[in-house]
Amino acid sequence: MADIENCDLKSLSPLQLFEKVTEQGEKVRALKAGKAPKDEIDAAVRMLLSLKLSYKTATGQDYQAGLPPRDLASINNCTKEENEDLVDPWTVQTSNAKGVDYDKLIVRFGSSKIDTDLINRIERAIGQKPHRFLRRGIFFSHRDMDQVLHAYENKKSFYLYTGRGPSSQAMHVGHLIPFIFTKWLQEVFDVPLVVQLTDDEKYLWKDLTTEKAYEYAIENAKDIIACGFDVNKTFIFSDLDYLGTSTGFYKNIVKVQKHVTFNQVKGIFGFTDSDCIGKISFPAIQAAPSFSSSFPQIFNGKENIQCLIPCAIDQDPYFRMTRDVAPRIGLLKPALMHSVFFPALQGAQTKMSASDPNSSIFLTDSPKQIKTKINKHAFSGGRDTIEEHRKYGGNCDVDVSFMYLTFFLEDDDRLEQLKQAYTSGELLTGELKKVLIETLQPLVAAHQERRKQVTDEMVKQFMTPRKLAFEF
Amino acid sequence: MADIENCDLKSLSPLQLFEKVTEQGEKVRALKAGKAPKDEIDAAVRMLLSLKLSYKTATGQDYQAGLPPRDLASINNCTKEENEDLVDPWTVQTSNAKGVDYDKLIVRFGSSKIDTDLINRIERAIGQKPHRFLRRGIFFSHRDMDQVLHAYENKKSFYLYTGRGPSSQAMHVGHLIPFIFTKWLQEVFDVPLVVQLTDDEKYLWKDLTTEKAYEYAIENAKDIIACGFDVNKTFIFSDLDYLGTSTGFYKNIVKVQKHVTFNQVKGIFGFTDSDCIGKISFPAIQAAPSFSSSFPQIFNGKENIQCLIPCAIDQDPYFRMTRDVAPRIGLLKPALMHSVFFPALQGAQTKMSASDPNSSIFLTDSPKQIKTKINKHAFSGGRDTIEEHRKYGGNCDVDVSFMYLTFFLEDDDRLEQLKQAYTSGELLTGELKKVLIETLQPLVAAHQERRKQVTDEMVKQFMTPRKLAFEF
Repeated sequence: MADIENCDLKSLSPLQLFEKVTEQGEKVRALKAGKAPKDEIDAAVRMLLSLKLSYKTATGQDYQAGLPPRDLASINNCTKEENEDLVDPWTVQTSNAKGVDYDKLIVRFGSSKIDTDLINRIERAIGQKPHRFLRRGIFFSHRDMDQVLHAYENKKSFYLYTGRGPSSQAMHVGHLIPFIFTKWLQEVFDVPLVVQLTDDEKYLWKDLTTEKAYEYAIENAKDIIACGFDVNKTFIFSDLDYLGTSTGFYKNIVKVQKHVTFNQVKGIFGFTDSDCIGKISFPAIQAAPSFSSSFPQIFNGKENIQCLIPCAIDQDPYFRMTRDVAPRIGLLKPALMHSVFFPALQGAQTKMSASDPNSSIFLTDSPKQIKTKINKHAFSGGRDTIEEHRKYGGNCDVDVSFMYLTFFLEDDDRLEQLKQAYTSGELLTGELKKVLIETLQPLVAAHQERRKQVTDEMVKQFMTPRKLAFEF
Repeated sequence: MADIENCDLKSLSPLQLFEKVTEQGEKVRALKAGKAPKDEIDAAVRMLLSLKLSYKTATGQDYQAGLPPRDLASINNCTKEENEDLVDPWTVQTSNAKGVDYDKLIVRFGSSKIDTDLINRIERAIGQKPHRFLRRGIFFSHRDMDQVLHAYENKKSFYLYTGRGPSSQAMHVGHLIPFIFTKWLQEVFDVPLVVQLTDDEKYLWKDLTTEKAYEYAIENAKDIIACGFDVNKTFIFSDLDYLGTSTGFYKNIVKVQKHVTFNQVKGIFGFTDSDCIGKISFPAIQAAPSFSSSFPQIFNGKENIQCLIPCAIDQDPYFRMTRDVAPRIGLLKPALMHSVFFPALQGAQTKMSASDPNSSIFLTDSPKQIKTKINKHAFSGGRDTIEEHRKYGGNCDVDVSFMYLTFFLEDDDRLEQLKQAYTSGELLTGELKKVLIETLQPLVAAHQERRKQVTDEMVKQFMTPRKLAFEF
């Protein structure tokens, strides 16, 4: 990369510059991961910053990972104003240490806030305390939940649909959020669930064979099963596999594909003319499980059962598209519940990355690794010295250990105590980290224990299309 | 439509003008089909011509049905020079009464001529007289036939793949050409055959439900079966149906889709940003049956069996794309044999249309209908008066009855006699038409008889994925 300093950056096209920045970013990450000498890392970071500056000069836009340069007018149907967060299925970016501004996102995406009224209504409907993810605003936004609840109150049920793009064998604790919540929904509402593993998507987007993508799907299925789903009410499927075994799935895919133009997916997902036709048509494949007729064996041929999708907010563009198409093909719009993003250990500015081992706690980490990672990498909202911390207190809004505890510590009172103690300065960063370590270690160990008990036979059972134990 | 005369055509965009022309063309066809008064038809035709002129003035291009205005540079990767024929899967257009110039097409498409040497080699390989379609240049172009024959001579076999887009229940005699030839290939080479019915394509392109498209596929399957294919060596499938029952088909589709960009299909098929994503990704679905791994049950899991595709030359763009992708996904390029177009009764300038009942002889026509259609509509190469005809002779090159006889009259000597007698003026147009009527009536009647014997059980048998009786 040294030769780049000698070449005239101005002679490069925006796309070439984009590629240079991406390449250099990867180099920096590799150097850091490989614990290279500090001066080598510093030099690489300086080069990265200089490349980013050249990119901005050439395009008038900030470099955004995964988002090649193009006409800004067409990148998203949700106009992004200056200083706004960028959220789409491939990029989550904010300049705020507290993370994405979710209230603004609700307005931009046109969804609805999960407010106290809705949470109370859920509580009445299920006769149980709402999940901590609801109590704490982790699932914060929805579409049509009023309708789902109204129907449920009138004895009309629904099914759940969630998914995962299996890009690597190891999942991190953040990946569990939708599954923990979905499992809870399955239990309290007593409803069936379909889980899509988009191995075809990963094959299309990554440098992977179909065999490898399918292998990841199976590995990820084991982690999902280990979350404790009811095998009699849960169907997990790989696209590469299920598309060839369902009489209903492809028919719904082609129906969606007929009613979405390239202009539309360009607007929603930012595809360009250089993208492969597989990527361009993929959104229909993520859309189709929103319709019960995609699962004739699962729902015993029953069509138009209401679907509810719990997912992270970055997946919403797929389902905005789906909801737009649904009435035009005579099918029900899916309802949605959106979660916030799980922050990286390094801070809430970005989503975690499965490709950076230090950006998160993996489900395969040992107790020692968990302890080391949290102590070493968890971004602290504490003060520089103990004296200052005791005097001014820590900042829970940016402290990653505290954020993680809001996701994983069940006890509301204890969480509130920790918050007060940390904010007042009574509790030190190291002490807060210790609470997190003691919370995550048994949680991850228990997951590992359950996962060990997931046999190939069980995976096969979950992934076999069959009538689920549920009457609609 | 009268109000159009009062509106300023110049104020319309090229796309609006395109739509006006299309609309008016449909009106003219409806008036003709409804046997409207002559002056009403004439007025509508004048309006159509005027609209076409406005379109040409605005765009600098001739109006081409099904081909909306766009940047000409991108419509086809085969540069079309002025006065050249236009040939793609949706449009066949020539200004020459003899039909498309096939020698030029071979050069433009980069295929090879089926010459005497190749025909002789086929004759040696099969130990039989080559089919009249080969003897008469009806299958005139190929890709990689030398390779297929070389392998065959060395005891390495292949499989056949052909298809049909089932857009309406009634097929015409022209639709039989690829099937008649394919049946012959199946017999003389003793090879298995897969037949794709692209009901998904028809659903995407036409105003049809998936159910209707599938219904047409089943009806068309009956006509195909009536051609006499060997059930033990033939698998017929509907995309809408088979995609959901094959473990190999979708995997090959997604592999092709990963290796073809929107830019490429834009260049090859003329898609635009306003096309639906289903159309844009469809070429991969027509490509995938070129690979034996799309049919694990049929070929008993054997991969990379050589494929040979007999088809009309307008389908070549799909397979140029397929051949380009194949080596990049580790699969064999399919070989091809291309046929000329079957002319409309009204002349060789265009391909026949299943939507115009008078443009062709349908497989459902009665002997009387066949007689009337030929007598009334078959474009004649004869002279205006009997005297002139006797003196100067007729022109077989543009006479549709003679062209049809080259397709359907098996006896070479008789065909040659008819040609000489017609050219010399000895044989009158009415007499030539009589020969054609007497050739087609028993042929169509025999087809109808065979089709009647095709039971639902037989259709099911042909369309059930199963191991074909063949060892590779």
